[in-house]
Amino acid sequence: MLFFIGLGLGSAKDITLRGLEIVKHSKKVYLEGYTSVLESTRVEMEELYGREILIADREFVEQNCDEMINEALTDEICFLVVGDVFCATTHCDLYLRAVNKGVKVSCIHNAGIMTAVGCCGLQLYNFGRTVSIPFFTDKWRPSSFYDKIKSNLQVGMHTLCLLDIKVKEQSIENLVRGLKIYEPPRYMSINTAIQQLFQIEEEKKQGVLSPTSICVGLARVGWSTQQIVVGEAQKLLALDFGEPLHSLIIPACDQLCDIEREMLEHFTLK
Amino acid sequence: MLFFIGLGLGSAKDITLRGLEIVKHSKKVYLEGYTSVLESTRVEMEELYGREILIADREFVEQNCDEMINEALTDEICFLVVGDVFCATTHCDLYLRAVNKGVKVSCIHNAGIMTAVGCCGLQLYNFGRTVSIPFFTDKWRPSSFYDKIKSNLQVGMHTLCLLDIKVKEQSIENLVRGLKIYEPPRYMSINTAIQQLFQIEEEKKQGVLSPTSICVGLARVGWSTQQIVVGEAQKLLALDFGEPLHSLIIPACDQLCDIEREMLEHFTLK
Repeated sequence: MLFFIGLGLGSAKDITLRGLEIVKHSKKVYLEGYTSVLESTRVEMEELYGREILIADREFVEQNCDEMINEALTDEICFLVVGDVFCATTHCDLYLRAVNKGVKVSCIHNAGIMTAVGCCGLQLYNFGRTVSIPFFTDKWRPSSFYDKIKSNLQVGMHTLCLLDIKVKEQSIENLVRGLKIYEPPRYMSINTAIQQLFQIEEEKKQGVLSPTSICVGLARVGWSTQQIVVGEAQKLLALDFGEPLHSLIIPACDQLCDIEREMLEHFTLK
Repeated sequence: MLFFIGLGLGSAKDITLRGLEIVKHSKKVYLEGYTSVLESTRVEMEELYGREILIADREFVEQNCDEMINEALTDEICFLVVGDVFCATTHCDLYLRAVNKGVKVSCIHNAGIMTAVGCCGLQLYNFGRTVSIPFFTDKWRPSSFYDKIKSNLQVGMHTLCLLDIKVKEQSIENLVRGLKIYEPPRYMSINTAIQQLFQIEEEKKQGVLSPTSICVGLARVGWSTQQIVVGEAQKLLALDFGEPLHSLIIPACDQLCDIEREMLEHFTLK
């Protein structure tokens, strides 16, 4: 049996009672260690759960997870995922590989960012599709997220922008040379996201984001140090939101209901 | 201090360790009792949490919650919510009333349906806006959800349809007479949702749902008896999904990625 267990967004204590029970009784515990970060360290988790935790990095999950799947044919194995279980495609892939090998799979849900953003007061019903904003490089400046935000705005929908995470990435040089040397982790800040949006705006000029557009910056949702700040894009650009993870919402401001408006005022930069 | 604590979707054991700690130490524990249902009864929750749980019905939350807010000025009070905390507008309203009275508010997230639906294998990134399908009456047959599904499909997006819940509702007769007599709770089934969609389709004829359109029926997501069935609308219409709660997804089938397609096949009615 393979258990996919969501850990929620904040600390080790955000595991559910059901999740913890399974972790305690299982033979081995793996932690998916590349799509997100928790407030707690692995050591804190090991102490709280009373179990050794093996880190499954991207390579492990995408290439070498056969061992884990084979173990799950005969034993109870846990695969811990920050947030909820199926926010990343990779986990569906792992799920399919397991069931196709005859492994039983069970899923323990937990908080995920796409629902938790409701804490800023914008109604989840009023969100269009979620976008990802990737780090620009000198040569690679995709802009499809800009078009998606625009099409959400056109139908009066807010957009949640998830910001890029680069963990255990190789430089192109090292990749070409086959050297397994990894760059330090990078997490996109709200500031960088707004900067990149301004850059695309300057090229496309389709009125998605002006310096005075109202945005919602969310840092460390679900952590003890969570921050929600509402303000003009140019003002958020100058603000230090601290540690990752950051997210950004571009609200459809002309479509806000009274409660949304009041909640945004509550979080507005004074 | 007022704690909003998400309970997740399934059993009493889906509370997080952090949530349970707060419940155990707080002065009073209220349970929001009208927007959703859990697999566990209140008695099971009281046993597991070791606390008396007071039911806060819609009337209480919308009209008589001043008492709870006043208590939270001096004591630690918990307000338990099935799913995640801010999926319903009412809770933002309660949040605002509390902070406007000077109460500190804290929020413990948990699994919500809008993220948990990822368990069917459709990628959350590929969902457009979520819609609600309300029970039709003889005179009231709104169709805005049909238009929203259509506009999601036009841009290649899946639609999550949340199905109506009627708890502690008065009949119009009793409402007019001021009699506080409540109808038995009603939860819309996947079958009724598809039926109503067919009815609107017959009127509008805009090709949103044909008898052979592929749909995803989800029953009791996060429960031990969870069911996910993929199949033609006309086939799901004839299927008994059992107990509530039910949800329905209308996928944008011509836009599926390989993993989505493979996951849907895995859940396809054989």
